[in-house]
Amino acid sequence: MATAGKVIKCKAAIIWEVGKMPSIEEVEVAPPKNHEIRIKIVATSICRTDDNVLKGIFPDLEYPVIAGHEGAGIVESVGPGVTYVKPGDKVIPLCVPQCGECACCLSPKANCCLKSHICKPLQNLMPDKTSRFTCRGKQIHHFLWISTFSEYTVVPDVSIAKISNDAPLDKVCLFGCGFSTGYGAAINNAKVEPGSSCAIFGLGGVGLSVIMGCKAAGASRIIGVDINKDKFTKARELGATECISPEDFEKPINEVLMEMTGLGVDYAFEVIGRVDIEAAALASCHLGHGVCVLVGAPPAGSQLCISPLQLLTGKKLIGSLIGGWKLKDALPKLVSDYMANKFNTDALITHVLPFEKIGEGFELLNSGKR
Amino acid sequence: MATAGKVIKCKAAIIWEVGKMPSIEEVEVAPPKNHEIRIKIVATSICRTDDNVLKGIFPDLEYPVIAGHEGAGIVESVGPGVTYVKPGDKVIPLCVPQCGECACCLSPKANCCLKSHICKPLQNLMPDKTSRFTCRGKQIHHFLWISTFSEYTVVPDVSIAKISNDAPLDKVCLFGCGFSTGYGAAINNAKVEPGSSCAIFGLGGVGLSVIMGCKAAGASRIIGVDINKDKFTKARELGATECISPEDFEKPINEVLMEMTGLGVDYAFEVIGRVDIEAAALASCHLGHGVCVLVGAPPAGSQLCISPLQLLTGKKLIGSLIGGWKLKDALPKLVSDYMANKFNTDALITHVLPFEKIGEGFELLNSGKR
Repeated sequence: MATAGKVIKCKAAIIWEVGKMPSIEEVEVAPPKNHEIRIKIVATSICRTDDNVLKGIFPDLEYPVIAGHEGAGIVESVGPGVTYVKPGDKVIPLCVPQCGECACCLSPKANCCLKSHICKPLQNLMPDKTSRFTCRGKQIHHFLWISTFSEYTVVPDVSIAKISNDAPLDKVCLFGCGFSTGYGAAINNAKVEPGSSCAIFGLGGVGLSVIMGCKAAGASRIIGVDINKDKFTKARELGATECISPEDFEKPINEVLMEMTGLGVDYAFEVIGRVDIEAAALASCHLGHGVCVLVGAPPAGSQLCISPLQLLTGKKLIGSLIGGWKLKDALPKLVSDYMANKFNTDALITHVLPFEKIGEGFELLNSGKR
Repeated sequence: MATAGKVIKCKAAIIWEVGKMPSIEEVEVAPPKNHEIRIKIVATSICRTDDNVLKGIFPDLEYPVIAGHEGAGIVESVGPGVTYVKPGDKVIPLCVPQCGECACCLSPKANCCLKSHICKPLQNLMPDKTSRFTCRGKQIHHFLWISTFSEYTVVPDVSIAKISNDAPLDKVCLFGCGFSTGYGAAINNAKVEPGSSCAIFGLGGVGLSVIMGCKAAGASRIIGVDINKDKFTKARELGATECISPEDFEKPINEVLMEMTGLGVDYAFEVIGRVDIEAAALASCHLGHGVCVLVGAPPAGSQLCISPLQLLTGKKLIGSLIGGWKLKDALPKLVSDYMANKFNTDALITHVLPFEKIGEGFELLNSGKR
């Protein structure tokens, strides 16, 4: 391409400091270095984690930063050493890399690539500790190595999955985080079984994707839990058999679920990121064998306090990182399953906005309307 | 038998009140009622849980009480409705019943029988809320329905396993709790895999049995952890490849284990019952997929506080109740495996004392010499 090897000027949404809304600026995006790929981002969605960047919840993150980690695009050019993709390929950047070489990538039981930012203090430059983004002469930080809130971004080649060139990028950008996380939490982490009962705490995009996973796995009872009843219609549409709001009950929600189910649910999913709700989810699990899956990420430093007796008598407490998928392997298949109409992720798309209106997107997220 | 249907006078060890050593007394043992079995106890071992009865750690337990839950004996007589055993059969009383009818007994994933005392506030009378034990005109309470610290005891028929009539009762009494718990925690709950690394916190009889389970499962690295170095010789004999004492290090033991293993152990077992050690065991687990198994029972009301991020990135926190076995089904097979020399549980027997010296047994337990 004509732009290969050159700096590209384009628009990006920069969060200049904690608490400031992202501002659309012209940035310079340097060409990819060794084992790096420059991508034209075609579509991106906004995840709660991006909002957490805005709110300053990650203690080690440096600003200014370009957030965004749920996108899809087309390879513009590749740096030396890249063999996996070529210009023109459709790709999804990975918020959790898959290097293919570390102890976790080599284990069939783990997906937390040791190259992942999640496994060490979050550093938000490229692997060589420099940035590819400049704005008004100032270096701008990356986020999770993928910074999808930019028309062009540069990512390491461990952080990308190649997908079908027929894939609609404006739809499958959701597969970069939200849908894959929720769906996989039910399918891969909990391994929900046919006929089982499930409770999902939090009915945002990820929670709705958990519902889709529970339904696909054949759960017979799927109980959505949220204080925002506006979420209930979509939850029911996607598979929830019942929806309840904790605000409608005087007693704790785990006691309500115990009464509804007799001995608790087989699987409980916490998709909010609050330790008090995590404890309630565990308490809602079936005595003797219920599985509680943590999906939402609480603020750094949070402590979850529970009675160990619940575990001693057979409940299990596990978590889900990006739905348990090894993303580079999984995304091509998930995208082709979507294209074969195996799941209706389009229902998760509530609003479509031009890039310039990203601030409006954050407002919708925080108003509970997405 | 000549005693069937009659009250039997025999010796029993009664704990009259919290903090008092058990005292050997003559008790009257009433005949078994409906679905009950009277057993002549031939051998019993002492478990830390019995010591906890003495120390008053169970808040709902009533005194005076006859403790003991790790025994073996011979059926003396049976009450109406009992078809499973007949007088003369060798049996092991079950500290966790297997009713065969409740949701947990019917689930292949649970072993916490809903008839179990562990699933509800501990009540220490027989299921009909009366006692079969009397001493000097006073009703004496049962413990876990089986009270093996008596020459004769009465148990419900859900709380018994029939074993081979060739079994040496003075050896297989350990299968009623300690050995089965530890061995099963490795085999059934953790499902230790060949070539894996394990750490066992606490090297009492149960911890040593965990080591035996890890070894049988083919673990290649088995690290014993205890502050009592007298335990190390036996631990090595039974399969530990290394033993360490936290007192030999300045840094926390989980950091020591991280350094020893690179990324943590595949499986960590807490066999003490302290929430701080439970947290250390979880922290010692391999990032991304390590499994922490709680085996020791902390005092009622204890709270385990952990960072949920450890679970979100892939560690699992589970527990073990009596090694995950459904005891009525499992014990006959475990005992026959022992008789076929499949495991050397005799190594767990440190002292053999006559029943009258049970107080000395408790002293040995607390001196760390058992």
